[in-house]
Amino acid sequence: MYRTHDCGQLRISEVGNQVTLSGWVQKARDLGGMTFLDLRDRYGITQVVFNMDENADLCQEARKLGREFVVQITGTVRERSSKNPNRATGDIEVEAITLKVLNVSATPPFTIEDNTDGGDDLRMKYRYLDLRRSPVQNNIIFRSKLALESRKYLDSQGFIEVETPFLIKSTPEGARDFVVPSRMNPGEFYALPQSPQTFKQILMVAGLDKYFQIVKCFRDEDLRADRQPEFTQIDCEMSFVHIEDILNVFEGLAKHLFKHTLNIDLGEFPRMSYDEALQRYGSDKPDLRFGMEFVELNDIAKGHGFSVFDSAEMVVGICAEGIADSYSNKDIKDLTEWLQRPQIGAKGLVYVKFQADGIKSSVGKFYSDEQLQAWGNKFDAKQGDVLFILSGETEKTRKQLNELRLELGRRMGLMKAGDFKPLWVIDFPLLEWDEDAQRFFAMHHPFTSPKQADIPRMMYGDHETMKSLRADAYDLVINGVEIGGGSIRIHDRELQSKNFDLLGFSKEEAEHQFGFLLGAFEYGAPPHGGIAFGFDRLCAVLNGVNSIRDFIAFPKNNQGRDMMIDAPSTIHDVQLKELGIKIS
Amino acid sequence: MYRTHDCGQLRISEVGNQVTLSGWVQKARDLGGMTFLDLRDRYGITQVVFNMDENADLCQEARKLGREFVVQITGTVRERSSKNPNRATGDIEVEAITLKVLNVSATPPFTIEDNTDGGDDLRMKYRYLDLRRSPVQNNIIFRSKLALESRKYLDSQGFIEVETPFLIKSTPEGARDFVVPSRMNPGEFYALPQSPQTFKQILMVAGLDKYFQIVKCFRDEDLRADRQPEFTQIDCEMSFVHIEDILNVFEGLAKHLFKHTLNIDLGEFPRMSYDEALQRYGSDKPDLRFGMEFVELNDIAKGHGFSVFDSAEMVVGICAEGIADSYSNKDIKDLTEWLQRPQIGAKGLVYVKFQADGIKSSVGKFYSDEQLQAWGNKFDAKQGDVLFILSGETEKTRKQLNELRLELGRRMGLMKAGDFKPLWVIDFPLLEWDEDAQRFFAMHHPFTSPKQADIPRMMYGDHETMKSLRADAYDLVINGVEIGGGSIRIHDRELQSKNFDLLGFSKEEAEHQFGFLLGAFEYGAPPHGGIAFGFDRLCAVLNGVNSIRDFIAFPKNNQGRDMMIDAPSTIHDVQLKELGIKIS
Repeated sequence: MYRTHDCGQLRISEVGNQVTLSGWVQKARDLGGMTFLDLRDRYGITQVVFNMDENADLCQEARKLGREFVVQITGTVRERSSKNPNRATGDIEVEAITLKVLNVSATPPFTIEDNTDGGDDLRMKYRYLDLRRSPVQNNIIFRSKLALESRKYLDSQGFIEVETPFLIKSTPEGARDFVVPSRMNPGEFYALPQSPQTFKQILMVAGLDKYFQIVKCFRDEDLRADRQPEFTQIDCEMSFVHIEDILNVFEGLAKHLFKHTLNIDLGEFPRMSYDEALQRYGSDKPDLRFGMEFVELNDIAKGHGFSVFDSAEMVVGICAEGIADSYSNKDIKDLTEWLQRPQIGAKGLVYVKFQADGIKSSVGKFYSDEQLQAWGNKFDAKQGDVLFILSGETEKTRKQLNELRLELGRRMGLMKAGDFKPLWVIDFPLLEWDEDAQRFFAMHHPFTSPKQADIPRMMYGDHETMKSLRADAYDLVINGVEIGGGSIRIHDRELQSKNFDLLGFSKEEAEHQFGFLLGAFEYGAPPHGGIAFGFDRLCAVLNGVNSIRDFIAFPKNNQGRDMMIDAPSTIHDVQLKELGIKIS
Repeated sequence: MYRTHDCGQLRISEVGNQVTLSGWVQKARDLGGMTFLDLRDRYGITQVVFNMDENADLCQEARKLGREFVVQITGTVRERSSKNPNRATGDIEVEAITLKVLNVSATPPFTIEDNTDGGDDLRMKYRYLDLRRSPVQNNIIFRSKLALESRKYLDSQGFIEVETPFLIKSTPEGARDFVVPSRMNPGEFYALPQSPQTFKQILMVAGLDKYFQIVKCFRDEDLRADRQPEFTQIDCEMSFVHIEDILNVFEGLAKHLFKHTLNIDLGEFPRMSYDEALQRYGSDKPDLRFGMEFVELNDIAKGHGFSVFDSAEMVVGICAEGIADSYSNKDIKDLTEWLQRPQIGAKGLVYVKFQADGIKSSVGKFYSDEQLQAWGNKFDAKQGDVLFILSGETEKTRKQLNELRLELGRRMGLMKAGDFKPLWVIDFPLLEWDEDAQRFFAMHHPFTSPKQADIPRMMYGDHETMKSLRADAYDLVINGVEIGGGSIRIHDRELQSKNFDLLGFSKEEAEHQFGFLLGAFEYGAPPHGGIAFGFDRLCAVLNGVNSIRDFIAFPKNNQGRDMMIDAPSTIHDVQLKELGIKIS
């Protein structure tokens, strides 16, 4: 037996007992006649003591141990003279009787500490060492717990986990597929699923009623900072449901997860339409941890000779509370330059400061103090507040002001760790116009149902009507991050065909790609709908961090490479030949 | 709201209540003034009644419904006059007040009944209809439960579920990899994992201590009857363990699963060495539901002038109890011919019948009754029993006798449904000689540790020594089916290198394929070991059936095709071009 206890287990009640521990040498300190060794495993750290007076040979052995050596120690538990209240085992130490080296270790290329000196690339290459660090290991353990709690909740609600296939068919709509050449069917390819969307709908047609799966999905996209070619979804679908049923079940899931991982009770989730979210926050995923809601000023800011506003489709601002004195002109200039960067592209920033000694504004010469005060009243601005106002084309201006609002939220410390503000955003547009492709795309996906009331208008076909169609689609947003989205699906073959028409699919394309789903709809498809949560993202949001990579045991870098195993790599010519493909 | 209850929920206590149900029309019967409709969903079937006298229009509507129409019915629960004790809802029926057709259905190409008239190909093409049938749906639901119970047990034992990557590196050792061309790294390929073997060992080096994952694996093999290109494993690994620790934990898993899915208590699992299993049953996965153990007769059957035996390396038999009278000469001739088929390849079958009127044997002219009785004594044969004896080269003969034993077990009804006999087979050979390749392969895999005592002998290198090396490897066998297997791994870089040597890897090959693992072994790898269970197979064994396909929602056929979605398929030229590959 390698151990009687793990390294996080021993307490004062064990004093006097003989125990055996195994683990890694975290560090060793030689203090005169004593050697103290911190022995680490997944569960914690236990201090082991070697005494030169009592057993010189053993103490000498201990002094030869390097960092990350794997050792087994038998010894006696005793109370520590100077306790360590920051460590669960801090009341005791183990006085070593025997020491066995189970494996040696070369010197690690970076320190195995909470704050390591290793750079990103080095830590990725030696991911097995990075994973020994508590913060990284805790993330992976958190993820495991989150998955299990998801399953327990969904099981309690009658959901069945069904594994859908990974080797499926390429459907070029949407992102690029990863494909897999078929050796047994030369010239043909499987595709890895971008999501189990069609299969989960098929399962509803099959009468499974409530399906879920925590499942890997694949997208061959150019990787932005925080995208991975393979990622994980909690994928769900239900039959015989309206929107309300789905929102309730999955609000329940989110509440369960917060309760059972963070012990946080989330209240009822507010709901907001897509249009309202854009109007109030300039975003379909507003961060509700702080206010700073948009106030539109068209009615009182236009027509006073300030041509920038007069020519703008939209004049809209936010009120930053209590920063009038602390935000210098230089700060405002910095903020303006930040907004003018090409990523955001604002032309300029108008401010109005309400200070003890009066109102100060970058547009003071166009507006009287009275007029500016009237603006302030619209925001309920008090002394000490600053209005920031942008103008221009509506959609663009809202986007820019959303960025400004978030940036101020960050700078002003309004995005508090441990504060979680969920929101259902509903009533999304059905279609989204793509300027480059000069066609409409499905905003959610081609299987999303229009709202019942909008179905007759689908037949009109004109641009404005198309843009105004609303879908039975919804997103769950927490702290400004979309963690899940879904929709009621079309379950009627005719309506599905019509939708493919609107999206510019030819009959042949629709049949080739989704024929099996359209076929299934011939045989009694029930009304159904579902949702999918980005599981990696969910882990990150619950931990208040931005990077999903921290929650993936073996992530790939921005070039899609696994630095540890050095994949992708070349393959043997014989493999290519068997697959009937050549590198061109 | 589409329903107040599901179709399996209503009981006598609900009589008088108004309810709403949604589901599929299983069947409808018109009986004079009444129409009875069986409404089905995942949860059950409820009888709905329409009465011509009370509501002629509604009853006429009901008479237009076809099989598999999706309908919503509101009505009043009432007690049935003739109850159906075979149905959970059999005490009640719902008298319809309203009927709404939610979707129509074409006539299904086969009947949606427990015993359908649909052939295999048709059912695969219309898998969504096949999945509506209770036996198929129950299998999928069982699988979901089995996965959840596996997770609950492993969680209770401190295991962490970690997702390992699907886009990894091709390692041509073992079966063929499926590969995935990398668009971002032209000319390079990912491979889909045949198992997470190296990653789970990396996780042990990373200190995760106890890992599991229920995970898809991929093998591009020519598909035999019951193989799938993608299949599921319960994959597990533990640190600081000896064999005993692993067997205990996973015996616990098997017991938990039997208890929580079938309510069966399995006793302690017997253990048997590989050598013993071969000697007693001619198989490393013996079915222990019945005896018929091998008895070797070399000492008393040879040297009596029967040249077939005299020249044989091995004379070995089994005793079939109580069939002496019922097994005619023709039956024995049939059995002999069955054994002589090329798949088995026995030369002949010797029998000895112990009947009331004396001993009868195909070798009666070579052996006296006394001698034959002495054979019988070795088997503890009684009157009515028949000995079946084979001879020849040891390994081959044992294999043939194993087939005979299993066939007799089947014919004699000794493999009882609901009877489960688990067995740990241990002490497997480390290496296996491949006649075709003229080299040794790892019997389990190249990371399996030889038994501690055999390590010094690894250096001898001669053929016989190599064959005699034993590994710390084990299989869990239930009813003659291997449902899991694993080993203690090598955790020492030197020993791992030596093992790669024995397996004929050059230093470069070993470095190219497994360099990251060998590298990880430099940094304090703990002693570790693990096991993997074939999850599809486990589902099948627990249900007493042979086919894993029944437990896979969307299986592929023997050509690796998904008949429903028609995959694999051709892809667009632009996809090929982007990937930098050509079809050759």
